[in-house]
Amino acid sequence: VTVSVPELDRSDGSRPMPGEGLDRSRAPPRVGGTGIRDLLEILGAPDVLSLAGGTPDPALLPVADLRTAYESVLARPETAGEALQYSSSQGHPSLRNEIARRMVADGVPCTSDNIAITAGSQQALDLLGKLFIWPGDTVAVGRPTYLGAIQAFDPYRPRYVELSAGACAAEPALSIVYVVPDFHNPTGRRMSVTEREALLAQTSGVLIEDAAYRPLAFDGSRQPSLLELDCRRCGSIEKARTIFCGTLSKTVSPGLRIGWICAPARVIDKIALLKQGADVHASTINQLVAARVLRTEPTDRLLHVRTEYARRAEALQDALTQSLAGVVTWTRPEGGFFTWVELPPMLDASRLLKRSITEAKVAFVPGAAFFARTPSHACLRLSCSMLPPDAIAEAVARLSRVIKESLNDHPGPE
Amino acid sequence: VTVSVPELDRSDGSRPMPGEGLDRSRAPPRVGGTGIRDLLEILGAPDVLSLAGGTPDPALLPVADLRTAYESVLARPETAGEALQYSSSQGHPSLRNEIARRMVADGVPCTSDNIAITAGSQQALDLLGKLFIWPGDTVAVGRPTYLGAIQAFDPYRPRYVELSAGACAAEPALSIVYVVPDFHNPTGRRMSVTEREALLAQTSGVLIEDAAYRPLAFDGSRQPSLLELDCRRCGSIEKARTIFCGTLSKTVSPGLRIGWICAPARVIDKIALLKQGADVHASTINQLVAARVLRTEPTDRLLHVRTEYARRAEALQDALTQSLAGVVTWTRPEGGFFTWVELPPMLDASRLLKRSITEAKVAFVPGAAFFARTPSHACLRLSCSMLPPDAIAEAVARLSRVIKESLNDHPGPE
Repeated sequence: VTVSVPELDRSDGSRPMPGEGLDRSRAPPRVGGTGIRDLLEILGAPDVLSLAGGTPDPALLPVADLRTAYESVLARPETAGEALQYSSSQGHPSLRNEIARRMVADGVPCTSDNIAITAGSQQALDLLGKLFIWPGDTVAVGRPTYLGAIQAFDPYRPRYVELSAGACAAEPALSIVYVVPDFHNPTGRRMSVTEREALLAQTSGVLIEDAAYRPLAFDGSRQPSLLELDCRRCGSIEKARTIFCGTLSKTVSPGLRIGWICAPARVIDKIALLKQGADVHASTINQLVAARVLRTEPTDRLLHVRTEYARRAEALQDALTQSLAGVVTWTRPEGGFFTWVELPPMLDASRLLKRSITEAKVAFVPGAAFFARTPSHACLRLSCSMLPPDAIAEAVARLSRVIKESLNDHPGPE
Repeated sequence: VTVSVPELDRSDGSRPMPGEGLDRSRAPPRVGGTGIRDLLEILGAPDVLSLAGGTPDPALLPVADLRTAYESVLARPETAGEALQYSSSQGHPSLRNEIARRMVADGVPCTSDNIAITAGSQQALDLLGKLFIWPGDTVAVGRPTYLGAIQAFDPYRPRYVELSAGACAAEPALSIVYVVPDFHNPTGRRMSVTEREALLAQTSGVLIEDAAYRPLAFDGSRQPSLLELDCRRCGSIEKARTIFCGTLSKTVSPGLRIGWICAPARVIDKIALLKQGADVHASTINQLVAARVLRTEPTDRLLHVRTEYARRAEALQDALTQSLAGVVTWTRPEGGFFTWVELPPMLDASRLLKRSITEAKVAFVPGAAFFARTPSHACLRLSCSMLPPDAIAEAVARLSRVIKESLNDHPGPE
């Protein structure tokens, strides 16, 4: 098993000299050789119990419905011709309508003019970075935050400030803010309404709401989205400062690369132009298939998916309580895939991962990659999404032995 | 019929003031509200004979093969699970292998390590802009050039120099060059080997070769690609300075959004990291389907496609000769979709388009959008890809009447 351990490379990509040719490089990713890509490689090792990736379980995706949808689209010449042809940069109307309907049902008064279809919510972050971030601009992100957001924003060269969970930053007014209010990646936390209102009040510019895990509340409960609260406050989505990023990657299929931005129409118009320059449009056939699957989705499908992830999350909590209580601390998520573990400060999660993979065949993600500025090394992210409850229990039992042995090997605080 | 006429908006997007919120904007596209998106809208009008879009005819796409491929991938649980899941940012190995095999057959010694899969060749241009272009860098492009390249590069704020067809620029060494050597968009021209060698010799930095129309030589003939010449000259792709951008959009399906970059492995590694931050990866299912279609493609399929486009191009040439000889001049392409028409200098193609749509129900693309610096207005692009020969003859006959009437209305040169 080859493991790449995420370690931050803080080279800041200074401007190349003329004549460097192909070795000139405007945007050397700061997370050198790591990030999502290497996490997916850890995940792929065959005999490893993986608590690493933020990937949905394929068994919980609507595979049969997707198969039927591809076949119906391609069986009729008119829809086949449309599905295989170029289409609108803003997104196919049938999918934008379906997404707008869902946004309305989720409390946001909007129309399909407020929707742009993107290649997953990851591309939403890239396009928003391209639209809003000038070199040196301050972007406020969580401490910790989703590492893919750092990767999306970095090429636009912002300066970051870090917001601790629940606390607002010291800076009096935040001009660009990025948050994951529902079942945060990597901590699993959900913001309270009070926290949401406070964040809205403190944001003077653009508030980017990453809602990737929003449909996955274990008990089906909901908090109003930041965009809903913003619309309520100012009376119309056209006056809102919140930009909502959604995705089908956690509930329908990440392989389709379908996400969306919901925002004031004048922002959507700019995003559509940037999308056109970036890749013309999202896959037409995948958009038609997604629209069909959403339109015909049984009302109890998500209920089943949520219940199954809830069982896995509960197994993870039980296993942590049983074998690591008093040794480490951890979050208690109410939805999504992730639990965040704080280790005793003398431990380094990257070193722990090497040992965990080789000695215990258990994978997780070291926490350092999730910090935009100063990394903390004594923390890690566990995902419960890919394993059944008994495998989760086994993985945590093995991991706890590695943690305890590492603590024993350690001389302890001076 | 609502027509948006491309007109360049030369606002240069000065830095927004703090507190502008959602109306701040780092990258206002200079082609305000126009470009590819509006061309697709012109194309979509039902009763208009369109010589506008650079879209392949759906009747010439392998629709049945694609349908079979989707069904085979989704019918088996293992491949279905893989197709619907996250995958490698560099691209799925099965598709990279298939593309590498085709690049080798086309004269480029490379392996799948030299291939990155992108969302069409449009995204290749975006990622290459992100990697190589610093604000103020000089990028050399054709005069005219593909408007989508300008849209892809503009957010990275280059300065452009324009290379006239066949002539190299006055600047002694070009650090970043973008060209479409085969069946150029918008002129249809193919560069000779001598021109290719000269361009390689003059490029000191990065040479971006856009090969979107390369498979579509009417007689199946080929000139060596710039990348092949470069590899021959320096002995290995790893020492080459040429970056080749290919796409399946013109021959298999634009709706899949599958293209690729072929380049030295160290460039591919950087592109894969940027791709990860941009949208994680290209659609997994579309990559598996594309690999399957390429692997099983009948050897005579492209022959049939080329022959059909050749018939249409010939009909376009005949019609131009019959009704516009001595009035306008035009190029004589040996492949691809496009013919470039130079009008008498007193005519403005944008105004001509309005009249052509309303009076003659014929669409084309005014030439001004294809210039990176100083637009010429007395030129236009015709595409023969979407109409059968008799409709092309009818469209040109109608267009010629509008051109001649416009000339009669005009007082003539002072």
